Amino acid sequence: MARVVAFDAMSVAMWTEGIIAVDWGTTNRRAYRLDRAGSCTAEFEDDKGITGVPSGGFPAAVAEVRERLGDLPLLMAGMIGSNRGWVEAPYVPCPAGPDTLAQRLIHLPEQRAAIVPGLSFLDEHRADVMRGEEVQLFGAIADGLVEPDALVCHPGTHNKWAELRCGRVDRFRTIMTGELFNLLREGSILSQWLGGEVLPGEPFRAGVRRGLEGLAITAELFSVRAGVLLERQRPEGAAAFTSGLLIGADLRAGLADAGQVREVVVMGRPELTRLYAAALAEAGRPAREVDGERAFLAGITSIVEQIA
Amino acid sequence: MARVVAFDAMSVAMWTEGIIAVDWGTTNRRAYRLDRAGSCTAEFEDDKGITGVPSGGFPAAVAEVRERLGDLPLLMAGMIGSNRGWVEAPYVPCPAGPDTLAQRLIHLPEQRAAIVPGLSFLDEHRADVMRGEEVQLFGAIADGLVEPDALVCHPGTHNKWAELRCGRVDRFRTIMTGELFNLLREGSILSQWLGGEVLPGEPFRAGVRRGLEGLAITAELFSVRAGVLLERQRPEGAAAFTSGLLIGADLRAGLADAGQVREVVVMGRPELTRLYAAALAEAGRPAREVDGERAFLAGITSIVEQIA
Repeated sequence: MARVVAFDAMSVAMWTEGIIAVDWGTTNRRAYRLDRAGSCTAEFEDDKGITGVPSGGFPAAVAEVRERLGDLPLLMAGMIGSNRGWVEAPYVPCPAGPDTLAQRLIHLPEQRAAIVPGLSFLDEHRADVMRGEEVQLFGAIADGLVEPDALVCHPGTHNKWAELRCGRVDRFRTIMTGELFNLLREGSILSQWLGGEVLPGEPFRAGVRRGLEGLAITAELFSVRAGVLLERQRPEGAAAFTSGLLIGADLRAGLADAGQVREVVVMGRPELTRLYAAALAEAGRPAREVDGERAFLAGITSIVEQIA
Repeated sequence: MARVVAFDAMSVAMWTEGIIAVDWGTTNRRAYRLDRAGSCTAEFEDDKGITGVPSGGFPAAVAEVRERLGDLPLLMAGMIGSNRGWVEAPYVPCPAGPDTLAQRLIHLPEQRAAIVPGLSFLDEHRADVMRGEEVQLFGAIADGLVEPDALVCHPGTHNKWAELRCGRVDRFRTIMTGELFNLLREGSILSQWLGGEVLPGEPFRAGVRRGLEGLAITAELFSVRAGVLLERQRPEGAAAFTSGLLIGADLRAGLADAGQVREVVVMGRPELTRLYAAALAEAGRPAREVDGERAFLAGITSIVEQIA
C-alpha cells in the first residue's frame, strides 16, 4: 500500500482544493483544515493519539477526521508514522532540511494521504529520533520565527534540543523531562504532592537551580519527599520545585553542547514554553518563545509547497 | 494508644518468651519468629506492605502475623511507622546510634508491640529520611559485618548511602534508583524493553559508565529507545543498560561525598547487592556485599538487648 516517491498524489491538484493537516502524537491528535492560501479554517483536538487507536483502526480514525473537517487530502506528521502508528515512515538521518522531508514523504495514494517521516541522529556516542517536531522546526524557519542558524528547545513529553544550521536540523538531543514528570506525578511516592499547578515562581526557580547543579536527579527527587515530611519544604511548592528540578537538569544537558549561543528559541505549547523560558532566565540565558501550533501549520504549508 | 517511653512493655519478660520481628515496607512485609537466643525459627514474606493494608486494617494485619508465627510480642520496623502506616514513629535526627533508637521506640502496650522509629538528616542544603534500613545498619555493626566507621550503600526501592562514624549513622542520602527503574519498566515509552532480567554483563557495565559520566539521566534514557529503533542497541540488553545507567548515576551521587573511602559495603538483597558491587567495580571502588536479612535480625536483637 505504501510507496516512497518524491512527487505523487500530493500535488498541485490537492493543494488547490485545500488540505487537512494532522499532528498525530502518542496520546493526542490535533487536526486542522487549511484552505488553498494555507489559512486554518477549522480544527479540533482529541485524545485519539496512536495509543488510543485500536489495532487495525487507523482507516476508521482517519475517516473520522474527514467527517469532521471535510473530504480533503491528508498530510500527517508525528507518531502516526512510527512502528506503532498506521504506516511506518522510516527516519531521515540528520542533517536534513524540508526538501529532504518532502522527498521522503510516505504517500498512500489510495487514501489520498501522506505521512511525514521523522528525523534520526547518530554519532559514535549516541542515537536519537524525533517525529513531529521536525515539521515545526522547518515551519518556524519558513515563517521567519526562527533564524536558519539557531538552538531550539522544544518542550513536551520528550523535550528536543535541536541545532539548526543553514535551515537544516544539524543534530538534536531528546530529554525525557515531561514523561518523567508525568510518571512521578501518576505513580510514585511523590504523587500526593505533584498534582498542583506548576508556575514559574520561587519554588520552581529553586528547583531549576538545583537541577542545574548536576547531581543525579534520582538523588534530588527523594529530597522532595523528605523536605515535606521534615517541614523544610511546603507541600504546595513541591510540584513546581520538582518540575524545576527536572527542567534544570534538562537545560544543563541541552546547553552542554550549545557553545556560545546568543539566544535559545523555546518552541511549543505556551504553558510549557513559559516554564522553560523562566528556567533559561535562571540559567542566565536569553530565551524567546515561539508558538508551536503556528510553526506546525507553517511547516505543513512549506512541505506542500515543496511537492506542489 | 501510642506512648513514647524508654523502658516499657518490651522488656526482659518479652524476650524470654521470644519475639516476632517484622520488616514492614511499602509494598512487602517480612516477618520472623525469633527464639530467646535470637535465632529465627519461622518466617514468611507477603505483599501486605502498608499500601496493601486497607484503612483501619492494621490490627487485623498484625493479628494475621501472630496467627502464622505465634502469639508473641512484636517489634516492627520500616514504613509501618510512617504517616501512612499504623502508628507514626517520629524520625530520630542524625547522628544516631542503636541506643537512640531503643530510647525512642513507640510502644503500644495494649498490642504487645513496638515500632522502631526511622532516622532523619537535615543540613543547610538538604533533607532526608529513612525507615527500616537503620535497623540493618546497626545490626550489621553489632554482628561484626560492618566496621563502626564505614560507607554503606543499601540498594532497594530507595537506595540509601549511609556514612557510619563510631557506630552511629552520621549522615545519609537517598537515591530513588529502584523506584525510577520500576516506573520506567511499568508505564513508560521504554516499558517494552525493560522486562528482561538484569545481569551484570557488558550492557549493564556500559550503562554504568554512561551514568557515571554525569549527564542528566533524562537525557540518556531516551537514547535507549532511539538506540533500539536505530539498531544501535540490542533490545535484549536494554533492561541491563538502563539499570546500569541509573545505578551509575546513583554511584556518582553517592560517592560524591565519600572522600577517600577504602571500601564500600553494599548491604541488602543479594540480587541487588551484586549489581551494585559490579557497578562499583566498574567505578574502580572495592565493594563488599553483606546480606541485609541477616543484618536486620541482628539489628532487632540488638534493640531488644538495649531495652531488656
